[in-house]
Amino acid sequence: MKYVYFFGAGKAEGTGDMKEILGGKGAGLAEMTRIGLPVPYGFTISTACCDYYLKHNHKHPPRLRSEVEKNLSRLERVVGKKFGDARDPLLVSVRSGSARSMPGMMETILNLGLNDQSVEGLARRTNNARFAWDAYRRFVQMYATVVTGLPKEELEGRLRALKERLKAMDDTQVGAEHWQKLVTEYKHYFKEKKGQPFPENPAEQLWGAIGAVFESWMAEKAVTYRRVEHITGLLGTAVNVVQMVFGNTGDNSGTGVCFTRDPSTGEKSFYGDFLANAQGEDVVAGIRTPVPLRELERRMPKVYKQLDRARQMLEKQYRDMQDMEFTVEDGKLYMLQTRTGKRAPAAVFRIAADMVQEGLIKREEAIERIQAQDIERLFYPVIASTVPRQELVQRKICTGVNAVPGAAVGRAVFMAHEAEEWAKKGERVVLVRRETSPEDVGGMAVAQGVLTATGGKTSHAAVVARGWGKCCIVGCEKLFIDYAAKQMSSNGRVVRQGDWITLDGNDGTVYAGQVQLASPQMPKHYHTVLEWADEIRKLGVRANADTAQDARKAREMGAAGIGLCRTEHMFFKDFEHPERSADRQLAIQEMIIADSREARQRALDRLRPFQRGDFMGIFRAMDGYPVTIRLIDPPLHEFVPHDAEKQKELAQKIGLAPEVVARRVEQLSESNPMLGHRGCRLLITYPEILDMQVGAIIEAALECRKEGIKVIPEIMHALTMDRKELQILVDETRRIADNLIQKAGIKLEYLVGTMIELPRAALLADELAEPAEFFSFGTNDLTQTVMGLSRDDASRFLPEYLDETKAAIFSTDPFQTLDRAGVGMMVEWAIQRGRSRRPKLKVGICGEHGGDTESVKFCYRVGMDYVSASPFRVPIARLAAAQAIIEDKRSKRPRR
Amino acid sequence: MKYVYFFGAGKAEGTGDMKEILGGKGAGLAEMTRIGLPVPYGFTISTACCDYYLKHNHKHPPRLRSEVEKNLSRLERVVGKKFGDARDPLLVSVRSGSARSMPGMMETILNLGLNDQSVEGLARRTNNARFAWDAYRRFVQMYATVVTGLPKEELEGRLRALKERLKAMDDTQVGAEHWQKLVTEYKHYFKEKKGQPFPENPAEQLWGAIGAVFESWMAEKAVTYRRVEHITGLLGTAVNVVQMVFGNTGDNSGTGVCFTRDPSTGEKSFYGDFLANAQGEDVVAGIRTPVPLRELERRMPKVYKQLDRARQMLEKQYRDMQDMEFTVEDGKLYMLQTRTGKRAPAAVFRIAADMVQEGLIKREEAIERIQAQDIERLFYPVIASTVPRQELVQRKICTGVNAVPGAAVGRAVFMAHEAEEWAKKGERVVLVRRETSPEDVGGMAVAQGVLTATGGKTSHAAVVARGWGKCCIVGCEKLFIDYAAKQMSSNGRVVRQGDWITLDGNDGTVYAGQVQLASPQMPKHYHTVLEWADEIRKLGVRANADTAQDARKAREMGAAGIGLCRTEHMFFKDFEHPERSADRQLAIQEMIIADSREARQRALDRLRPFQRGDFMGIFRAMDGYPVTIRLIDPPLHEFVPHDAEKQKELAQKIGLAPEVVARRVEQLSESNPMLGHRGCRLLITYPEILDMQVGAIIEAALECRKEGIKVIPEIMHALTMDRKELQILVDETRRIADNLIQKAGIKLEYLVGTMIELPRAALLADELAEPAEFFSFGTNDLTQTVMGLSRDDASRFLPEYLDETKAAIFSTDPFQTLDRAGVGMMVEWAIQRGRSRRPKLKVGICGEHGGDTESVKFCYRVGMDYVSASPFRVPIARLAAAQAIIEDKRSKRPRR
Repeated sequence: MKYVYFFGAGKAEGTGDMKEILGGKGAGLAEMTRIGLPVPYGFTISTACCDYYLKHNHKHPPRLRSEVEKNLSRLERVVGKKFGDARDPLLVSVRSGSARSMPGMMETILNLGLNDQSVEGLARRTNNARFAWDAYRRFVQMYATVVTGLPKEELEGRLRALKERLKAMDDTQVGAEHWQKLVTEYKHYFKEKKGQPFPENPAEQLWGAIGAVFESWMAEKAVTYRRVEHITGLLGTAVNVVQMVFGNTGDNSGTGVCFTRDPSTGEKSFYGDFLANAQGEDVVAGIRTPVPLRELERRMPKVYKQLDRARQMLEKQYRDMQDMEFTVEDGKLYMLQTRTGKRAPAAVFRIAADMVQEGLIKREEAIERIQAQDIERLFYPVIASTVPRQELVQRKICTGVNAVPGAAVGRAVFMAHEAEEWAKKGERVVLVRRETSPEDVGGMAVAQGVLTATGGKTSHAAVVARGWGKCCIVGCEKLFIDYAAKQMSSNGRVVRQGDWITLDGNDGTVYAGQVQLASPQMPKHYHTVLEWADEIRKLGVRANADTAQDARKAREMGAAGIGLCRTEHMFFKDFEHPERSADRQLAIQEMIIADSREARQRALDRLRPFQRGDFMGIFRAMDGYPVTIRLIDPPLHEFVPHDAEKQKELAQKIGLAPEVVARRVEQLSESNPMLGHRGCRLLITYPEILDMQVGAIIEAALECRKEGIKVIPEIMHALTMDRKELQILVDETRRIADNLIQKAGIKLEYLVGTMIELPRAALLADELAEPAEFFSFGTNDLTQTVMGLSRDDASRFLPEYLDETKAAIFSTDPFQTLDRAGVGMMVEWAIQRGRSRRPKLKVGICGEHGGDTESVKFCYRVGMDYVSASPFRVPIARLAAAQAIIEDKRSKRPRR
Repeated sequence: MKYVYFFGAGKAEGTGDMKEILGGKGAGLAEMTRIGLPVPYGFTISTACCDYYLKHNHKHPPRLRSEVEKNLSRLERVVGKKFGDARDPLLVSVRSGSARSMPGMMETILNLGLNDQSVEGLARRTNNARFAWDAYRRFVQMYATVVTGLPKEELEGRLRALKERLKAMDDTQVGAEHWQKLVTEYKHYFKEKKGQPFPENPAEQLWGAIGAVFESWMAEKAVTYRRVEHITGLLGTAVNVVQMVFGNTGDNSGTGVCFTRDPSTGEKSFYGDFLANAQGEDVVAGIRTPVPLRELERRMPKVYKQLDRARQMLEKQYRDMQDMEFTVEDGKLYMLQTRTGKRAPAAVFRIAADMVQEGLIKREEAIERIQAQDIERLFYPVIASTVPRQELVQRKICTGVNAVPGAAVGRAVFMAHEAEEWAKKGERVVLVRRETSPEDVGGMAVAQGVLTATGGKTSHAAVVARGWGKCCIVGCEKLFIDYAAKQMSSNGRVVRQGDWITLDGNDGTVYAGQVQLASPQMPKHYHTVLEWADEIRKLGVRANADTAQDARKAREMGAAGIGLCRTEHMFFKDFEHPERSADRQLAIQEMIIADSREARQRALDRLRPFQRGDFMGIFRAMDGYPVTIRLIDPPLHEFVPHDAEKQKELAQKIGLAPEVVARRVEQLSESNPMLGHRGCRLLITYPEILDMQVGAIIEAALECRKEGIKVIPEIMHALTMDRKELQILVDETRRIADNLIQKAGIKLEYLVGTMIELPRAALLADELAEPAEFFSFGTNDLTQTVMGLSRDDASRFLPEYLDETKAAIFSTDPFQTLDRAGVGMMVEWAIQRGRSRRPKLKVGICGEHGGDTESVKFCYRVGMDYVSASPFRVPIARLAAAQAIIEDKRSKRPRR
């Protein structure tokens, strides 16, 4: 195995597509060298060495030493300078570089090769002793802290003291002799702490630097970054040893960063910053303000022209927008880095679309380049980029799980009904709860954002909020909420009801007070790319929507039907006429508390017109598209109040003793409600609910038919596990529906089907496919049962299962991305078995996974007819469905 | 299809093995006729007619009428009497009879054929007008109520009034003319209510009676009986139309019931009762006391000799103990019924063993005849048979699910710790809880019995109690327990703490006060039969046992090892030294509340010697047999107190603020603890617990090895779902164990394996078999997850799923008998997959199903190496394992 790859003098051993081996930086340097761009000479030590080093007790692979020595000699030869030379020494930078960008996470050593002899050589060659000694002092400081781990503050302190003594504003005001003295001070400190002198031998310096870069791969911040960004499967970091060039040798020098297109808007214009007489670290430090590229054009037209040519060559070569770093040393341009540039959401779409128009890439490539978060980030407001960093640091209260992106500002309110009251008075509120339940949806609906102390990305709060595209942070484990005192606290910081807070759903941070937000904008190129995706994809995309409003939003987002309409949300909220919600709540609660079938029937009779009206609104919005309606699913206790006060209130309203209400609520409570009396089990025990719901659906459909609307209702039973159970329900559903249709004398087609959300249903799918005309995989619950994981509780230990530094058992959260190995096996089995009995069985998915890129691809590949996602994730699904086809075409994978 | 089967005059169309078609009674009558016993003539209408009748809107099959008419003519011919004949009429009884005995559940009509003419004929032939008119009045009364549904009380009232008027003590004191008058009264009443005269036509009477018998199959009490007795799959009842014989024609007549062997002891002696001058219903009514058979022998030696010959013939014919009914009419013996006799638990074993010795049956048949409940009932005390029925009725409070048989008397106590205090003072207590948790095991251990308001047969209370063979009733849904007031109530009846109650775990009834109990006795023939089973079976049988005491009991019951030793019960109770339990509780609670790894480690260090000691006791008891120890399984919140008072106490003991304790307990609570942070997930997050538990196991094993004990520890991880997860734990387990073994310098072999209790583990069993040396199916949890059923909550709707009159979705409770279709498929898949990767993988089951007959047979058939059951169910498993082999041999089914 080759460990070291040389580049320089127009030749490179590596290529641009060797990122895995050379890291992004190394591959870029090799590629730029190959296509003839001016690149400093150097060599890259491969990521495989890092892997070996970390796995072999911090020892390098045996052959590495000789390879490095050989390449170092070659470097000296082509550059024409020697390491440690007292006249004109070779100096190098030693930089990390992994296959995926991890900005600022790993280490860099500059000016390596300086010692007491070579510093003089540098001074002589540049004719600038101040510059040389400054470079030397920087190197010693960097080496001492990064490689040997001496405390940065100690060295910085000495530097600060010196500058104060000299009343120097910046480094250029410090003379050579002072720098020299500081170097001596540093070295004394080094020897005192380390018990040996500072290494003067450049080779020794180099090996120390290489080891330090390798070590930095496992530094806590780097590991955390990889975890947060889901970066897995990399070998480690490469090490780039590159000839130093200096942008700070005078006014004819400088350094800069540029993009081949505008990263904010995507516009095809050369965009970048330049700082004269400076090195890269000065740009980062932000003491001096860089100027735009046109200033470079004015000052150094030749260099600019050369740079613009590099821009064009690199974009053509990489066929994507590039982010480049360059340095000008004494009027000579050096390209230091090129990589695919990060860009704002709007720019993502514009660049992709423009490049297709320009013939640079194909439509398929444009589609493949869009990622789910590019779409997500389009739709949500964000913390304004103008807010000072310092302000954010000061305001920060705590961090939770970023369940739904976006940002929200409002007054903290801890009870859903109070949130509704406040909202009625025109207040903007953020609903803060330990956790939420269907009772809280009214309060959630009026809130700007939702914050919960418990739960993960698929907790009730997250799922509901996601459906509405409402900013939501969950699982703030450090947040202590005191409902009685109406306040929350974290790390000693207390927020009382009515205090302003700001949520940043993009990173899960909670801030005190009102932070300035910026609104989202929808670029026209977004539509272009999504239409291309629609032309390619075969998988249908529907939306999960519970109200007419959601349904309209779903159509807007490109959903061709509703894959999951949950009927229970309607029990608590009249979304078209919120002021009428109380009637519904009372009716459902009365139905539940009822102690006789008659009382229950009376309550159901009152609910029926509400449900009918809701369904009509949805059918109208979905004219011509199928609407899958899931019959009641959650356990009844979720609908009744659990605190004594509200129970008393309810008792009074329905004319029962408070003890009776309390008793009934107690009877309804379950140890494991997820596995309890819910879904179709409720309809087996209370067939009158089935009658009401099916009746309301069919009546609404018939009414709409009269209006000339094309209605395609699909009635869906939840949590089934047995053929006979489903048969009973399907027979009864058809009896009720056919009766109404016959009475009305109107032709109406409808389907009856089932969710597949329990392993037993999946296992016996062939039997279930007899009564069921369609399957819809409820992969939230299927994940819970297949893996034995409660989504509300998993935040207690799942993070450790995902943590690369700890157990690292799973690479993705199974509630976000479908667990292919286990849950996926069940899904495949069920589809295969179901279609063995009913070949034309319609199959879809309506779990949260229907809006996740990888899961959508899986759904396509196992032969589903459609996926259903929350409206705001419909575009992600549309895109993923196209991406799956493109990927499969490339890898020639047949669809099952 | 033939609908009617004739028997009489030494010939029968049916045979004794046609029970499914003819019902038990009809088959018996046919068989007795065939072998030449004196049987009244008659015919049987098949069960298929009942099925047709119930499915076709209460219409008989078209051909039935002609078949019945033909057989009726034949009956008239062979008997030599005619229906409705005014001189010597044919009278018949019309009796139900299903394939499985349902005593008293269905209808019977006697003396059918009597009308105003034929009554005279009967009077003439018997020369006894009083008898004839009494018979007629009985018929009219029976017909009016049973067939036409007139209220029994109305007719009984008239009869009572008559007898009062006449001051008659019994029916024989009422003269013919009074009976005649009563018949007239009855008929008037009939006409008044029904608007038509009482049917005088015997054919019409017959069809009415046949219909009534069919209807009675679906009467509520019959349906309930079948549900309770798990009687399913029958077509319906047959109808036996049989020539009437009269035991009440004088002192030369009589009726009786006898058994071929003593049904209480099983002794081979002729056992029975006889009542002179009486009909069967008089025996049932219990007004006169029957005499033993030797009295019959004395009075009618010829009849007795004939009966004894019938006894011998029938036992030889049926090769089992028979229960026979007979009538003597004017010195002539008639056999009316023979069926396999019910017998006391002790008799079951004696009869089976004796019959093998006598060469009547083979050992295999003896084994097949024993049922699980025969064994169960052997071990448990029962309500004494001497307790008057009336007393039981008065004392009854409510009924729940009979989770563990037996009976218990004690004072009701509502808190586990109070139960312990009371027990210390020498009080006998019954622990009454809404539900139990591991915190309550101390109180459960000292209680005579356990009663809970919630839960099913596999709830915590049931499972723990079953392990101890302790009487337990769960799921008393109508019981309202008020912990604050320390009382329970049901139907307005209140039981306060300290009041005596009695539990009958055999039928789930709770009684107020102290009811007399009787102790169980273990017959020697039990051991004989079980040893035969052991010789035949191939499947290993182990026990679930958590303490040395349990382990000793398990050995006594014939367990060859422990298949499941739950380590968490030890955290709450020192079973050898109960007075030391508090130390353990405190240590485990301190471990959980600990806010640092150090504090947790200190608490674990204190627990370690406790666990080590417990394991040593178990290893000693299991010398030479394997012991599978499951590492900590339940979620931690089950170990900490949930009420403020106890939390305060705990806080004080461990020197923390009560708020800290409360906060930590709140943090531990989960929405769905069954799917929560438990099992191996705890060991992933708290590796120090793994260290303590594995350390304690290995140290105990090493100590025992020094004592010369053969120790075979099998360390088992719970709730695994992923290969990597298990690999991490197995590696760590081996590291800890090997370290200790190496240090000790003692050779010790041990296995490390996993439970398979989540669908994902079963699906990916091939992968899990790489790190796992054995699998043990935890089918309780596997049932919960595969079916999405919480065993603690399932009692809310599962009864309806099992109810034959309602949904009838399942025929058996999946928590009692393994769900073959779903859970069974997962188990088979996992075994197959597991052994595909590790051919010698050891496989067992340790769920509750390991003690269920059908489930044990399944386990054998899918190739498991052993089953593990609670000690008291070990004999059931031993027997079932042999039964499976015998069944398979007969059906030539190969084992997988």
